[in-house]
Amino acid sequence: MRPSGRAPDEMRTIQIETGYTKHAEGSVLIGFGETKVICTASVEERIPPFLRGKGEGWVTGEYSMLPRATHTRGNREAARGKQSGRTQEIQRLIGRSLRAVCDMKKLGERQITLDCDVIQADGGTRTASISGAWIALRLAVNKLMADGVISEDPITAKVAAISCGIYQGTPVLDLDYDEDSNADADANFVLIEGGLIAEAQATAEGAPYDEEAMLRMLRLARVGCDGIFTAQDEAIAG
Amino acid sequence: MRPSGRAPDEMRTIQIETGYTKHAEGSVLIGFGETKVICTASVEERIPPFLRGKGEGWVTGEYSMLPRATHTRGNREAARGKQSGRTQEIQRLIGRSLRAVCDMKKLGERQITLDCDVIQADGGTRTASISGAWIALRLAVNKLMADGVISEDPITAKVAAISCGIYQGTPVLDLDYDEDSNADADANFVLIEGGLIAEAQATAEGAPYDEEAMLRMLRLARVGCDGIFTAQDEAIAG
Amino acid sequence: MRPSGRAPDEMRTIQIETGYTKHAEGSVLIGFGETKVICTASVEERIPPFLRGKGEGWVTGEYSMLPRATHTRGNREAARGKQSGRTQEIQRLIGRSLRAVCDMKKLGERQITLDCDVIQADGGTRTASISGAWIALRLAVNKLMADGVISEDPITAKVAAISCGIYQGTPVLDLDYDEDSNADADANFVLIEGGLIAEAQATAEGAPYDEEAMLRMLRLARVGCDGIFTAQDEAIAG
Amino acid sequence: MRPSGRAPDEMRTIQIETGYTKHAEGSVLIGFGETKVICTASVEERIPPFLRGKGEGWVTGEYSMLPRATHTRGNREAARGKQSGRTQEIQRLIGRSLRAVCDMKKLGERQITLDCDVIQADGGTRTASISGAWIALRLAVNKLMADGVISEDPITAKVAAISCGIYQGTPVLDLDYDEDSNADADANFVLIEGGLIAEAQATAEGAPYDEEAMLRMLRLARVGCDGIFTAQDEAIAG
Amino acid sequence: MRPSGRAPDEMRTIQIETGYTKHAEGSVLIGFGETKVICTASVEERIPPFLRGKGEGWVTGEYSMLPRATHTRGNREAARGKQSGRTQEIQRLIGRSLRAVCDMKKLGERQITLDCDVIQADGGTRTASISGAWIALRLAVNKLMADGVISEDPITAKVAAISCGIYQGTPVLDLDYDEDSNADADANFVLIEGGLIAEAQATAEGAPYDEEAMLRMLRLARVGCDGIFTAQDEAIAG
Amino acid sequence: MRPSGRAPDEMRTIQIETGYTKHAEGSVLIGFGETKVICTASVEERIPPFLRGKGEGWVTGEYSMLPRATHTRGNREAARGKQSGRTQEIQRLIGRSLRAVCDMKKLGERQITLDCDVIQADGGTRTASISGAWIALRLAVNKLMADGVISEDPITAKVAAISCGIYQGTPVLDLDYDEDSNADADANFVLIEGGLIAEAQATAEGAPYDEEAMLRMLRLARVGCDGIFTAQDEAIAG
Repeated sequence: MRPSGRAPDEMRTIQIETGYTKHAEGSVLIGFGETKVICTASVEERIPPFLRGKGEGWVTGEYSMLPRATHTRGNREAARGKQSGRTQEIQRLIGRSLRAVCDMKKLGERQITLDCDVIQADGGTRTASISGAWIALRLAVNKLMADGVISEDPITAKVAAISCGIYQGTPVLDLDYDEDSNADADANFVLIEGGLIAEAQATAEGAPYDEEAMLRMLRLARVGCDGIFTAQDEAIAG
Repeated sequence: MRPSGRAPDEMRTIQIETGYTKHAEGSVLIGFGETKVICTASVEERIPPFLRGKGEGWVTGEYSMLPRATHTRGNREAARGKQSGRTQEIQRLIGRSLRAVCDMKKLGERQITLDCDVIQADGGTRTASISGAWIALRLAVNKLMADGVISEDPITAKVAAISCGIYQGTPVLDLDYDEDSNADADANFVLIEGGLIAEAQATAEGAPYDEEAMLRMLRLARVGCDGIFTAQDEAIAG
Repeated sequence: MRPSGRAPDEMRTIQIETGYTKHAEGSVLIGFGETKVICTASVEERIPPFLRGKGEGWVTGEYSMLPRATHTRGNREAARGKQSGRTQEIQRLIGRSLRAVCDMKKLGERQITLDCDVIQADGGTRTASISGAWIALRLAVNKLMADGVISEDPITAKVAAISCGIYQGTPVLDLDYDEDSNADADANFVLIEGGLIAEAQATAEGAPYDEEAMLRMLRLARVGCDGIFTAQDEAIAG
Repeated sequence: MRPSGRAPDEMRTIQIETGYTKHAEGSVLIGFGETKVICTASVEERIPPFLRGKGEGWVTGEYSMLPRATHTRGNREAARGKQSGRTQEIQRLIGRSLRAVCDMKKLGERQITLDCDVIQADGGTRTASISGAWIALRLAVNKLMADGVISEDPITAKVAAISCGIYQGTPVLDLDYDEDSNADADANFVLIEGGLIAEAQATAEGAPYDEEAMLRMLRLARVGCDGIFTAQDEAIAG
Repeated sequence: MRPSGRAPDEMRTIQIETGYTKHAEGSVLIGFGETKVICTASVEERIPPFLRGKGEGWVTGEYSMLPRATHTRGNREAARGKQSGRTQEIQRLIGRSLRAVCDMKKLGERQITLDCDVIQADGGTRTASISGAWIALRLAVNKLMADGVISEDPITAKVAAISCGIYQGTPVLDLDYDEDSNADADANFVLIEGGLIAEAQATAEGAPYDEEAMLRMLRLARVGCDGIFTAQDEAIAG
Repeated sequence: MRPSGRAPDEMRTIQIETGYTKHAEGSVLIGFGETKVICTASVEERIPPFLRGKGEGWVTGEYSMLPRATHTRGNREAARGKQSGRTQEIQRLIGRSLRAVCDMKKLGERQITLDCDVIQADGGTRTASISGAWIALRLAVNKLMADGVISEDPITAKVAAISCGIYQGTPVLDLDYDEDSNADADANFVLIEGGLIAEAQATAEGAPYDEEAMLRMLRLARVGCDGIFTAQDEAIAG
């Protein structure tokens, strides 16, 4: 039924390559099928002005797509001179999602920036970014702890994200671009290890949806995120 | 329990003044308690480039706050030279919400822009904007139909939006600024008359939430939107 | 003779509603006929860099029009990414006009920003802004004095502004949009209670004018500003 | 009495060098004492969108100062990424002033841009720009007529501009930077050959002024502009 | 002698992975040691305005670095709202270099954009970009020819680029970041298969250099580019 | 053979007028034939952030062209809101070239900005800018030394720049616009008194060039720069 031939609750293959670039304190190339994102965590010994003197740190996210990550070439945002609303919406979501599992007091007065750069897009770039950014954050924090910079682990749990949708009336998990373009509704869930929700966003694209559909998408998301948590564990252990 | 003294499922007073400004095809001043937004619908006989030749129209939203709509004065976005991520996220939400109840073929090759300008903010500005924008849109479309420009009504249903949150463990409806600033979770629902959902967004601010909390917030939102639908009817009839 | 049917020296009805928004230290909705402007005065305990260490304050103005304040919708300046030359010229005029009646030593090291946001435009938006901004400033300063923040009143006089023009050879007062669009000359006067001039600007639009015309416009402006001074007094007393 | 030692009604020496640059259709270096401005008139066979199909032309102005035209180096506006309010206000004034003496029908569907670039500033740069821009325009139009592009002269009169001020209580003509910095009021007049006024702007800097002061400044401006008209004639004849 | 331990004329290992991303008509990941760049060639059936109606195509380049491609995180250019002078200088060089080996008549009225995105930087990013961009261009043109869109090969030769420098008095080839930071002079050569020069740029960083040094750097560049030409051949054949 | 009728190694007439503007610490109008550039050196007692606390100064360059310095009017960069890649590339070159002959320790913690504003362009504007900027720098440093601000001369040598090209197969010196537009290759050399090279840039425009051509252009550049050094000496002595 799905263009991809996958079962409704079937994820795409997750590929994770840690240490993908050498300068960042944490880095990973994460792939969900043909969607591929480089996530890096950069530690800086400075904090944004609104936090000065509070003894707390900050975690923030940035997001971009290479111009030809997509089917047709998009204009480079740096050349256009501003970031699109979509880009800003996604980077705000990435930052919130990672802050949901980070104790800012334990992090101390430093900032970790999670850069998520999509090198190939095939649906689900924002959720792959969040799932990969957690790994980069984990690696960077591990380094800070190994270096003795931080004594207590500020990361309180794993966080993962996945998209769901209603495709021809059926809730499906982890939509690729073709499925996403034709879905009636499109949802993104950011879940925390253990079952709590950090963020749920479900948008009607072609037709409004009911409560039942929302719940069924959430349950699919739980299946998906469990798979991602396992992959995150293996990647960090690896 | 709530700082406002309201019951968990109690809305603030809704005030609606139609025809608030004279130039727009549709205009309204909508108030949810101390939150006040001017919504105007402007009809233009042109469409965005990506729609040319398709025989369809477009509905889009813009959002702004007056610099001193808030407790402390914010910088004017026009002076800073760019709109914040928050502003862009909200205007995208307004546009999607209104497009969910508009048949673009029936609208014909014209664009309606819904400008939502917050003159006083006390929580829930984006949901007041959507609820008010529908009234402005309805008035503008009524005018187009009365003028014989459009023959079939392109508006398929009413749409309304309301915020909910988890305040000290309890789901509450229609948060004001004080409540919103201290809520553990913050949700916005865009509902369509009849019960379907156009958009659901629930974000953990202080602590992640569970499925039960999300459902309870959605049920509160239904109560709230029913009240708004009634107010919209009265305003249009008025 | 005038499209509005008014006598050459007849002003439009002035409507003033103080306390129009609740967060600003001073706020007012001012109307000159169909022209309506929200003016707020925001007090901030900081001064621009060029004044640091001088023991003086600063008064500045900002101006904007809602996109659909006018007959046809204009682009939002925040979306275009810059303020027009017209906007900047008007905000500079507002700032200068209010500074002309404010003793910066008595104000002390704080800044008052006068935001003038036009919600409906029908000619004379800049002069309505100045006349309304004075009321907002007066209210904010009254509050600072009542709170004991300032001991001596820094406001030295009332200031008001009004437009005049040459319409079909006749000098007329307080032009609305239709009159302004067809005037041969267009003038704005900023007068100080007692008769002195803070600013005079008279521009030939259709045809140059002579000294006599300029003087007759100035005399009409005196009539108009006397009416505004009275309205300001009543609004503050109100 | 004046820092410059000049009599109240004494202008600075005017120096005009036509044909200062070779590419422009009209060009001039104009000096009022130490204030020096390069004015060029560029003819382009295109018009702004709002004039299309009306059979009319357009005259517009642009203004800039070299970063070190002033006592201390200013930031380059191109590097800052935007033009200041002052710059935009001046370019709007230049455009209006020249349009006041140009018949757009006779000009035909073409645009003339008057670029005024200040290479050394010592007060009065905007008025020197207007006075010089007229010469550049005259030269460019002469060329268009000599080339047979235009048959009837679109220039209806000479236009000139000069600053006046109230310096220590006395109205004075053509202020240099030292005088301007310490003046109580500052005025710019744009006069048309024969005595009519295109623009009058008088601003209180240190203290408001009265009608008598405004009139005395206007009369000084007449004296000054008569001198400029003579210099313009000689330059064109030259 | 070199920090890298390499002989003066010794290149770093070149790694080339073609088909690195799936959407672009040509794509490659090119590595010179630890410097890694994704180069894609995007074909668009449109040309810049200045070429319209000439029957010719266009080849252009864009360049960017991921924020954490470097030792310390740099600000994202899209977030800052403008591209740095360095970025623009490099993209101009990439475009010129590729145009030097492309017959625009044979390319026909289409544009090929070469996006070079540095994912890890260790010196020589601009030369790796040019060398990799040629491969991406070659792949894209091969596809256009295989698809029958182009009948005659517009690529006239291979082009490659390499950096050289004077390190502690000795000319060396292919500097990494440590070497580049401490070099007395820094040169980039863009050479065409067969020996001709498309671009030579040699800049004194610490100390000016003489003609002999420039020639010795050029000769090293020939050695280096011969190696790159071989690697390009193998990658295309691969 | 050359459109200009000059011999291949013949420079255009160099004209230098020192003290061209009065505010700058050093200023000059430099002309190479019809190319004319105003160069000013501005001394400021501040340094860029990256140099703070190092006891060193900084020398930087800025470059612009008046809109009508060229055959057809170009858009003003300040109005467009950004500097072109070409402008930025040239200002970077100016800065590097002057820093090559300046001892930053001897300059002390101050910045000298060299503004190069082209008032008329006919080829070679960047090289005229560098050659003139050196004179402005020399004059400003002389003033600092005469005023006792600096005790030891920070300028280590003269620097000059000139363009060369391959025109119809023949290397020629100091190309004007017509020659430059039709040259097969275009080179700019920045040479230091005594023969060392600060910068060499040679770009194939129509056809790639060989090593012999590059060397012949460099030798022509030596001839040209010797002439410029003499003119610089005379200007300073003058």
